[in-house]
Amino acid sequence: MTRMPTEDTALSQLHDVVHEVADAMRRRADRGAVADYIPELATVDPSAFGIAVADNDGNVAAAGDCDVPFSIQSISKVFTLTLALGKVGDNLWRRVGREPSGSPFNSIVQLENERGVPRNPFINAGAIAVTDVILSGHQPREALGEILRFMQFLANDKAITIDKAVAASEQRTGFRNMALANYMKSFGVLTNPVDFTLGVYFHHCAIAMSCRQLALAGRFLSHSGKNPETGIAVVHAERARRINAIMLTCGHYDGSGEFAFRVGLPGKSGVGGGIFAVAPGKASIAVWSPGLDAAGNSHLGRIALEALSKRMGWSIFGA
Amino acid sequence: MTRMPTEDTALSQLHDVVHEVADAMRRRADRGAVADYIPELATVDPSAFGIAVADNDGNVAAAGDCDVPFSIQSISKVFTLTLALGKVGDNLWRRVGREPSGSPFNSIVQLENERGVPRNPFINAGAIAVTDVILSGHQPREALGEILRFMQFLANDKAITIDKAVAASEQRTGFRNMALANYMKSFGVLTNPVDFTLGVYFHHCAIAMSCRQLALAGRFLSHSGKNPETGIAVVHAERARRINAIMLTCGHYDGSGEFAFRVGLPGKSGVGGGIFAVAPGKASIAVWSPGLDAAGNSHLGRIALEALSKRMGWSIFGA
Amino acid sequence: MTRMPTEDTALSQLHDVVHEVADAMRRRADRGAVADYIPELATVDPSAFGIAVADNDGNVAAAGDCDVPFSIQSISKVFTLTLALGKVGDNLWRRVGREPSGSPFNSIVQLENERGVPRNPFINAGAIAVTDVILSGHQPREALGEILRFMQFLANDKAITIDKAVAASEQRTGFRNMALANYMKSFGVLTNPVDFTLGVYFHHCAIAMSCRQLALAGRFLSHSGKNPETGIAVVHAERARRINAIMLTCGHYDGSGEFAFRVGLPGKSGVGGGIFAVAPGKASIAVWSPGLDAAGNSHLGRIALEALSKRMGWSIFGA
Amino acid sequence: MTRMPTEDTALSQLHDVVHEVADAMRRRADRGAVADYIPELATVDPSAFGIAVADNDGNVAAAGDCDVPFSIQSISKVFTLTLALGKVGDNLWRRVGREPSGSPFNSIVQLENERGVPRNPFINAGAIAVTDVILSGHQPREALGEILRFMQFLANDKAITIDKAVAASEQRTGFRNMALANYMKSFGVLTNPVDFTLGVYFHHCAIAMSCRQLALAGRFLSHSGKNPETGIAVVHAERARRINAIMLTCGHYDGSGEFAFRVGLPGKSGVGGGIFAVAPGKASIAVWSPGLDAAGNSHLGRIALEALSKRMGWSIFGA
Repeated sequence: MTRMPTEDTALSQLHDVVHEVADAMRRRADRGAVADYIPELATVDPSAFGIAVADNDGNVAAAGDCDVPFSIQSISKVFTLTLALGKVGDNLWRRVGREPSGSPFNSIVQLENERGVPRNPFINAGAIAVTDVILSGHQPREALGEILRFMQFLANDKAITIDKAVAASEQRTGFRNMALANYMKSFGVLTNPVDFTLGVYFHHCAIAMSCRQLALAGRFLSHSGKNPETGIAVVHAERARRINAIMLTCGHYDGSGEFAFRVGLPGKSGVGGGIFAVAPGKASIAVWSPGLDAAGNSHLGRIALEALSKRMGWSIFGA
Repeated sequence: MTRMPTEDTALSQLHDVVHEVADAMRRRADRGAVADYIPELATVDPSAFGIAVADNDGNVAAAGDCDVPFSIQSISKVFTLTLALGKVGDNLWRRVGREPSGSPFNSIVQLENERGVPRNPFINAGAIAVTDVILSGHQPREALGEILRFMQFLANDKAITIDKAVAASEQRTGFRNMALANYMKSFGVLTNPVDFTLGVYFHHCAIAMSCRQLALAGRFLSHSGKNPETGIAVVHAERARRINAIMLTCGHYDGSGEFAFRVGLPGKSGVGGGIFAVAPGKASIAVWSPGLDAAGNSHLGRIALEALSKRMGWSIFGA
Repeated sequence: MTRMPTEDTALSQLHDVVHEVADAMRRRADRGAVADYIPELATVDPSAFGIAVADNDGNVAAAGDCDVPFSIQSISKVFTLTLALGKVGDNLWRRVGREPSGSPFNSIVQLENERGVPRNPFINAGAIAVTDVILSGHQPREALGEILRFMQFLANDKAITIDKAVAASEQRTGFRNMALANYMKSFGVLTNPVDFTLGVYFHHCAIAMSCRQLALAGRFLSHSGKNPETGIAVVHAERARRINAIMLTCGHYDGSGEFAFRVGLPGKSGVGGGIFAVAPGKASIAVWSPGLDAAGNSHLGRIALEALSKRMGWSIFGA
Repeated sequence: MTRMPTEDTALSQLHDVVHEVADAMRRRADRGAVADYIPELATVDPSAFGIAVADNDGNVAAAGDCDVPFSIQSISKVFTLTLALGKVGDNLWRRVGREPSGSPFNSIVQLENERGVPRNPFINAGAIAVTDVILSGHQPREALGEILRFMQFLANDKAITIDKAVAASEQRTGFRNMALANYMKSFGVLTNPVDFTLGVYFHHCAIAMSCRQLALAGRFLSHSGKNPETGIAVVHAERARRINAIMLTCGHYDGSGEFAFRVGLPGKSGVGGGIFAVAPGKASIAVWSPGLDAAGNSHLGRIALEALSKRMGWSIFGA
């Protein structure tokens, strides 16, 4: 494929920036603390760092541990939200709100104050409610298969799997999520048996993907809802914008304001240390570093995205 | 000034869209309810509608009651934040956070839970704390003069004034703001006498401006911190981006997620019925319609911005 | 046993008052609403009314449906608290507080704010934590047997049983209690498997007793910790006083202040419509009427106790 | 007046116990920390300890610094509640609740959740609302005079005065109370100008009384509403019981359960280090020791009352 010179230059710049960012991260001593609340996650190598950027021209710039699969955890919430909107459209908003919560990811206070309706699809309670919507009318195994196949389709990679040890680990210890789910059930916000919904939830959080796979999977959000290579529409352009908006306002729990302030891109973090971010109209991005900051977001991941966004001039809030 | 044909076309399109939006709003019957919690504001004509868009090329497209001054109320918080950052820089963030609150504009619960430090500069408590920073070392009259002159400078219009009847009305009835201010004072978050800080706060909320003046005043936020006509820098580009980020996540109280979802632009509303919004890299926007929705934001104002953003393709979340 | 004339007179007065109160209740049309949150409880006859008073001289005055067994529900919390204190003494207070909660019986907000430690043993969360203490080191079946035998011993009646249909009904629908238990488990406040603890909890709440049995069972609390007939000490006098104190401050959830204000006796209500109360130094009391008031306490039960307390001059707050 | 021998014996026992308790307190090294949130209070001698018990036969047993006046602070709330009930009867309960709050004395969260209506008359917000009721129709000076004269009448001592330095100190620094008052005002719960109501509130909290004066003033609450010497009724017997009930459930803020559990008497503490308590049918009690525990109640005062209650067998929860 022949490219315009300017495009080649831009691509070359992107490659340079991605490698410089990865180098800078490798040299840093501050790495945050690996999540220990899911025992299986605590075994990850804290020195890992990966980054991949898939631009709207079909290029991928990647560096570091960009091909090592990690537990995407809450990043799966972006994709289950997309699936659930595809199933029930705006009816989804009867079951979950779309406002920032001003609370930690696993807070139950808000549920009590608002009759069991979670504030947004990116806090745990909200993602469980979204999972319940996907599950409806299916067996847990079918629903889970649908989610996994959707990820494989988006990344064009059949090799993506679920890490069953991680899922089992959370199923044994996820008392707080069981509390959230039972609480919503008591208000009728969940319609399936709690164990079924949680089973699907714990498993889709345990999907393992590399930065490269994740960046490829998320391209529809940076490209008006379409896969930039195939041109196939995943969602309408307006829905892509709206998912990006929710990521911006709610994607990092009670650190969402901070992420918007520093990085200036819609993004979603997971306690596995991954962060998925979107530069609308430009690129889909995934970074991974297992050490977390106090707010539960990847410490180096956030710093890397801040550097990338600044270097590339990608902030959605201005040049 | 000679222009490129493409710019003329774009300008012409902007003019057309602005007038079409204004026409559409004029025809609507749903207008929300005029705020009555400040008695003086309740006297405003509910059928008013104004819009003004100042682009980065120095053009202004305006329609409807675009030259009628209205009480900007909480929109002033964007400009006092800018001033306070100019005074104390990032030290400001010791006095106020930058996370969405998940609460109404006048909630005091969050203050109790977080030792009197307001969540962000755009809820009332946060804006009072910001005002306290501007006041420090000055007499109230001087601080207020500085804020007013800043607005006049930004809009390049010495005619902008404070509506003293509105300020007096709020001073007589603003018990909730007095509660917030005294509460913060009890934690040492305010350093000046409560009456002084509130006096300045009530008065800068009572600044009266037209949509045109407001759109002109806000241009530095759409243009990397600089006045697009004079090229004079008001703030660094990074600070402009960050102020935009806070507007996006916190600008509409507990309706911030909804505004991001529907409009896709950083914005700040006021109970006077105005909304100021920024299309980064493109334009500074002001709309005004006094009727409010349940969340306290201008009903038609939000709808007009949603239409404008969609028609112009200005959403920061993608095309 | 020969009695002093004055005692006979007092006994005769008690009989008269008990029957008059029962008659007055029978004539009332206002009865509250039968609890429907446990489906099995919703089938009870709303017109039932029973009362029994066991004084410290070994007499029982009873009227109405005083021998009809009903689901004691939360009244069991008084007896499980007694058992748990017998097992671990003041160590219990590391797992549960003893302050009124200012919240409904099933609130979870307080748990989040206080790291999973319930405010007192009479809200649901607290009683689940107390049950967990009783369970420790035992199989659920054994722990449940111990609780049931304790009730049979106190009432001197082997016929007391557990209503398995009620227990099963709550086990199917008790999502809110499952939420509370899982939430505490996530903080390590529960040490047994959640299902085990909840199984025992749901079953001891489903113990069925008549007013007469309940009044007899509670006599140790009105008689300095001893059974007034046998003289056998159930607990030390100080512990009896302290259990009474907790009943007074916490026995009626967010209606505890109201009950103290109107009735002036330590008491504990259950959603089955029963209320157990203590006139320290005088008598142990049980009333039952299935219709509940807005706070979830027996409507006629509370009114009957208010009348009884006033007529007998039994308020602990003065003559 | 000739007395029965048994009464003399009882009186002699009371004198002995009171002196033994005072001696024991004098020997203790643990004294808590003197309140510093009202600057003027911080100057008090932390080693002071006084106790006075006025029984229903007209005797007073007193020891230690029993005649040294101290700032009664929140203890005044018992007497303003009595006055307000005398003025508006049960209408008072439209303005203030009677449930424990489960929160610190100066919490504002509960007000936001319950539309500005304070939970009970013994938290600060509730006492401010009660003061507003007493003030209605009067000038602040008159209302304050009425409260002071009521205290003088109850204690039969014209020498009782207001410590103006303490009142002024709180007026300068009582930002949290100003916040509470303005907050209630914003909901219309206060009907007088906020400054007027707070002025009266700060001044009645600054009434200075000795333990002896306080014990004498409170006798109507231990004696069915009547002064035991003069036989004059201050309130009906039922109202006395109800005020005692509110003291028991709400008298020590978020330490009310603990006080009931340990002491077993209705009581009300103040940050000046005083505690007023009632043994219904027996005695009115005042203790004073300026050092406070973590919950803001007099450390030695509570310990002294626990010892007194146990030694005299006065717990309302049983022998």
